[in-house]
Amino acid sequence: IAKEVAKLLEMKAQLGGDEGKHKFVLKTPKGTRDYSPKQMAIRERVFNAIITCFKRHGAEVIDTPVFELKETLTGKYGEDSKLIYDLKDQGGELLSLRYDLTVPFARYLAMNKITNIKRYHIAKVYRRDNPAMTRGRYREFYQCDFDIAGQFDPMIPDAECLKIVHEILSDLQLGDFLVKVNDRRILDGMFAVCGVPDSKFRTICSSVDKLDKMPWEEVRSEMVGEKGLSPEAADRIGEYVQLHGGLDLIERLLQDPKLSQNKLAREGLGDMKLLFEYLTLFGITGKISFDLSLARGLDYYTGVIFEAVLLQQENDHVEEPASVGSVAGGGRYDGLVGMFDPKGRKVPCVGVSIGIERIFSILEQRVEASEEKIRTTETQVLVASAQKKLLEERLKLISELWDAGIKAEVLYKKNPKLLNQLQYCEDTGIPLVAIVGEQELKDGVVKLRVVATREEVNVRRESLVEEIRMRTSQ
Amino acid sequence: IAKEVAKLLEMKAQLGGDEGKHKFVLKTPKGTRDYSPKQMAIRERVFNAIITCFKRHGAEVIDTPVFELKETLTGKYGEDSKLIYDLKDQGGELLSLRYDLTVPFARYLAMNKITNIKRYHIAKVYRRDNPAMTRGRYREFYQCDFDIAGQFDPMIPDAECLKIVHEILSDLQLGDFLVKVNDRRILDGMFAVCGVPDSKFRTICSSVDKLDKMPWEEVRSEMVGEKGLSPEAADRIGEYVQLHGGLDLIERLLQDPKLSQNKLAREGLGDMKLLFEYLTLFGITGKISFDLSLARGLDYYTGVIFEAVLLQQENDHVEEPASVGSVAGGGRYDGLVGMFDPKGRKVPCVGVSIGIERIFSILEQRVEASEEKIRTTETQVLVASAQKKLLEERLKLISELWDAGIKAEVLYKKNPKLLNQLQYCEDTGIPLVAIVGEQELKDGVVKLRVVATREEVNVRRESLVEEIRMRTSQ
Repeated sequence: IAKEVAKLLEMKAQLGGDEGKHKFVLKTPKGTRDYSPKQMAIRERVFNAIITCFKRHGAEVIDTPVFELKETLTGKYGEDSKLIYDLKDQGGELLSLRYDLTVPFARYLAMNKITNIKRYHIAKVYRRDNPAMTRGRYREFYQCDFDIAGQFDPMIPDAECLKIVHEILSDLQLGDFLVKVNDRRILDGMFAVCGVPDSKFRTICSSVDKLDKMPWEEVRSEMVGEKGLSPEAADRIGEYVQLHGGLDLIERLLQDPKLSQNKLAREGLGDMKLLFEYLTLFGITGKISFDLSLARGLDYYTGVIFEAVLLQQENDHVEEPASVGSVAGGGRYDGLVGMFDPKGRKVPCVGVSIGIERIFSILEQRVEASEEKIRTTETQVLVASAQKKLLEERLKLISELWDAGIKAEVLYKKNPKLLNQLQYCEDTGIPLVAIVGEQELKDGVVKLRVVATREEVNVRRESLVEEIRMRTSQ
Repeated sequence: IAKEVAKLLEMKAQLGGDEGKHKFVLKTPKGTRDYSPKQMAIRERVFNAIITCFKRHGAEVIDTPVFELKETLTGKYGEDSKLIYDLKDQGGELLSLRYDLTVPFARYLAMNKITNIKRYHIAKVYRRDNPAMTRGRYREFYQCDFDIAGQFDPMIPDAECLKIVHEILSDLQLGDFLVKVNDRRILDGMFAVCGVPDSKFRTICSSVDKLDKMPWEEVRSEMVGEKGLSPEAADRIGEYVQLHGGLDLIERLLQDPKLSQNKLAREGLGDMKLLFEYLTLFGITGKISFDLSLARGLDYYTGVIFEAVLLQQENDHVEEPASVGSVAGGGRYDGLVGMFDPKGRKVPCVGVSIGIERIFSILEQRVEASEEKIRTTETQVLVASAQKKLLEERLKLISELWDAGIKAEVLYKKNPKLLNQLQYCEDTGIPLVAIVGEQELKDGVVKLRVVATREEVNVRRESLVEEIRMRTSQ
């Protein structure tokens, strides 16, 4: 028996070895995913809404490579730089995958000496972050960016960016949302008057940035404990960052005895007032909140910053906080292009980035829940036959239809059953079937069947294209 | 004086040092490029033509990540594997940028156990090749792939792929073209009857693949000199690879005393005959040539292979050969999905890949030559004012227009000159100007100016949207 077992084990090992030949890990890289045809159909809807809005605002479109010279990205993202994907050094230049579309845009402007452009760019960006795919956080994800570059009168382009966020989130019907607005100059002024040393501005700013995920007490202890801020300074910050409101709050802070003494804060508050006046003209202040706790992570912002969050629906009986996360963000970055220009010439820029993945997750869940049937093709007609030996006739007819611009399919079988052909239409949502048969060929007609009603009419072959067009035009 | 010079030199050195801070190499990585708005406009035209065709043939669309697990790409590309871009090992999985869309498609099918799909995929792929950017050869470039996967009756999907190539190249009006067709089984059969040892099939095949760039004599000496093939075998191959034609040639080779003895060749020729019968039904044999010199580089093809080349125009007085290079290619790869399946289950596939970059280069040059003016935005109307202090009124009006879905722009100046506003329309091709002024506001009208004719009419504010729509509908 022992001998037999040994033999069997040996055989098993051999089989294992053979299987090993095919043993691929069948997956996409961590934090990435494929898009199925159904997901693509939803994705295209979202893109269409966004692109339509960007074009409505007169934007051109550009594209840049997926990777940049490594040094192009260096020193632009502060602490987040560790999340950049580098390419292997295979000889030649050192390259990194783009981390956002803003830095490549600034590089593009400086390289082509463009001082004035309104453009959008929709493309994938890459971050070696901890993925949370169910909440729409991926390592490869789309950004949809709209930016206005150029020397203009204050706050007009900034207001347009907020109008765009408002239009897109309204169009997509994602439920209630709120756009928080702040200004880096107000934050810096606030840090100054609260007694934060200059050298700690950035790190205290990134603590403030965590207020959407942590309670104030935790943020305060990070400031005091980890970052060595005095408890008094932290408490003073604590009073400010709880404030949010509209024009009234801006007016109040302009009168604030401490803040109003600070030049940066005064400039920021003055521009914020102007911004809110323009937003009033646009009729969108109802969903905009001036919020002193908004800080945003990225290093390159210099003025207005903003972030849009979706609010929990009342009928969403979930035990989560009221905000389900950021779906758009942006701000002003007047220094970034100058970092690339050999002479440091600045091009002021302001822009918005729509985070498509979270929006997409929400819409995908909604489609799943509603059991709405989404077509993944646009085929108007299936060319079919009821009898055998008519493949040639089917191919001749479908070729005529394709050449006339009709979207048509045929089953790749010599003699498919009519039932299978009709079933294919049911499954894929094809509305019409063009049936060729011996008799129809003799009579110079094609039998056109409406899948939904099972109605059948004979159509003269020369009128078929027109008839299909008529019956499938919305 | 010497002292002064020293001082000046020191100052210069200091300035140089400061400049150094901004000294970035301002470029895109080797073999890549940005797309300007004008280039994007041309690119979108080409994509639209291609997508329209793919949808006409009932294809769904998918997307996959830009990188794959390195092992997913291993062993799929033969000698070309050295051109794959690897990502740096930053901990975690080893990744590579995709080299084409075919291998990710096969991985997608195996991973999701899909045995039946017709899909297209348009995305960038990456090859560390020697770039020749003026001829449209890049390291980052688009592929537009259409593939049919599934067990079907022979040659029906294969014929559809060729029909698609024919439709797209005709639609794009790139001038005369030719689609060369061959079959890997015919090649292998030919190698066998010519006396090529089994072990040399692949390497001799890649020599044959060079026949579109080298004369036969050079290819022959590579076969005999570098690859150690006997001169007799090479000469026998030489006789075959000069042959090209249509159904007549297929018939002749089916009678060929040597080839007809080889099972693989017989199968290939039989299918080729069937393919040409279907292509005849599609009415496209005029631009299709059965060409025994076509080999294609990639390892994974198992049956029909094809490649479309643009032919030099007669009026193109250039001293180049008649073919300006491949713009589409494809073939049948019945084994690739099985390489990913744990049990080796095969899913037969056939597909076509349109090489957009060369097509795009040609169209770009054509646009440059024709001085055709390409609009890069779709803006219908500029909201303008003739007098000062009307920014608020302009913003109110443009907000109304945006909310009604009108594509509108406004200059980001408090008090822009009317002339500058009209000039902006001329420059960017905006057809209409909506002018607000004190009098118009009192009268409840907006002055609508047609840029091309300078005609001006007063339109009641409540009719403005309708009037703009009417005047800008094609």
